[in-house]
Amino acid sequence: MTDAHATPGQPTPQPSHVFMDFLCPYAWRGVELAAALRAEGEAFTLRHFSLVQGNHADNAGQAQTAWWLTDQPAHEGSEYQQGGLAAFLAAQAAARQGEEAVWAFSLALFRARHEHGQPLTTDTIQAAAVQAALDPERFAADLSDDAGLRAALRADLHEAADIGVFGTPTFVLPTGEAAYYRFENLTRDPAQARAWWNLYVTVLRDGAGVATIKRARNRPARRA
Amino acid sequence: MTDAHATPGQPTPQPSHVFMDFLCPYAWRGVELAAALRAEGEAFTLRHFSLVQGNHADNAGQAQTAWWLTDQPAHEGSEYQQGGLAAFLAAQAAARQGEEAVWAFSLALFRARHEHGQPLTTDTIQAAAVQAALDPERFAADLSDDAGLRAALRADLHEAADIGVFGTPTFVLPTGEAAYYRFENLTRDPAQARAWWNLYVTVLRDGAGVATIKRARNRPARRA
Repeated sequence: MTDAHATPGQPTPQPSHVFMDFLCPYAWRGVELAAALRAEGEAFTLRHFSLVQGNHADNAGQAQTAWWLTDQPAHEGSEYQQGGLAAFLAAQAAARQGEEAVWAFSLALFRARHEHGQPLTTDTIQAAAVQAALDPERFAADLSDDAGLRAALRADLHEAADIGVFGTPTFVLPTGEAAYYRFENLTRDPAQARAWWNLYVTVLRDGAGVATIKRARNRPARRA
Repeated sequence: MTDAHATPGQPTPQPSHVFMDFLCPYAWRGVELAAALRAEGEAFTLRHFSLVQGNHADNAGQAQTAWWLTDQPAHEGSEYQQGGLAAFLAAQAAARQGEEAVWAFSLALFRARHEHGQPLTTDTIQAAAVQAALDPERFAADLSDDAGLRAALRADLHEAADIGVFGTPTFVLPTGEAAYYRFENLTRDPAQARAWWNLYVTVLRDGAGVATIKRARNRPARRA
């Protein structure tokens, strides 16, 4: 169903992008799905979209973003705002240690938050860095480059705004299709992940031109 | 993919329900899809959901519906409100002439509105009744039973509220799953309709527990 599956001896395919926010349990499920597919050779790139920014009253109904998460001081605003910003900046720092490093760090942080109920604090972030086997001295040095990390985060937030991302996870296919994909269940099984991903890609490319499939409010999807 | 397909010699399957509003071009596409499948023996029942009521400011954030379309005088409110109410009441009258009559009338009225750009006025409604070959005297008599038609409409609006319908078309499967299904393209081809319907049913029954697939704002689905 998707042509983005890697084949040995073939050139590396263009990645799909997954826009996520560490605050969001559905983004966690989406990133686990992508991680299971990455283990099978499908390419995904982690990108950042801020729900606090997307839902901010100052941005409601505005054509251009007025309130940017990246303009906020580290220790102002709600717990969500502060934790979300700290997590994004830490992930930007982890990314300087390479693709595998940022995946390991992001998964560790998502699991700490949504599987183990930890808050997005400095302690949780440091524990995720240890779990991901980041180089601790380099991680500390990169974290201190606040302006550089914010600039990298801002680029993601800009691109998300250009695409019209409104929730997480939103996947962007190499061929340009992009949609929010919210599902209730968690999988780390590659075959199941492949089936769930193929279903999503099939919907986006179907001749019906599907714009939205969304459950009625009082008939939610079943959680396994 | 669906077990609701009729087989000769088998008992009639339970119908899926399609909640629609004559104001909505996506409801039109959904009703055309259902009509194409009905011709192949799949059972669908037409139901009414009011977008004007669903989006009314008096109902925003309310657990219980405060503003009902069925409480409004025929000649008050916006053009949408008046036309939507008149269309619903006419369809309730057409339904008294049977299942085939209400399908023929509803399709004729949807096409007049969304294919031919006619407003939802008395003239358009009468023309649709002629096109659907309704018994004109009976239609006139039934239309005059305003209280009875409003009571029947109110029952649909109540059930839609219970299900948590928020947009049209929303399909409710015989097994209880219910979701808004918005797609850009129109089909009257039974094989294509079958494929688009199977995709929707597959998404609703998939093990992922899909809650939402919705395009990013600036990456809309392609219209064929």
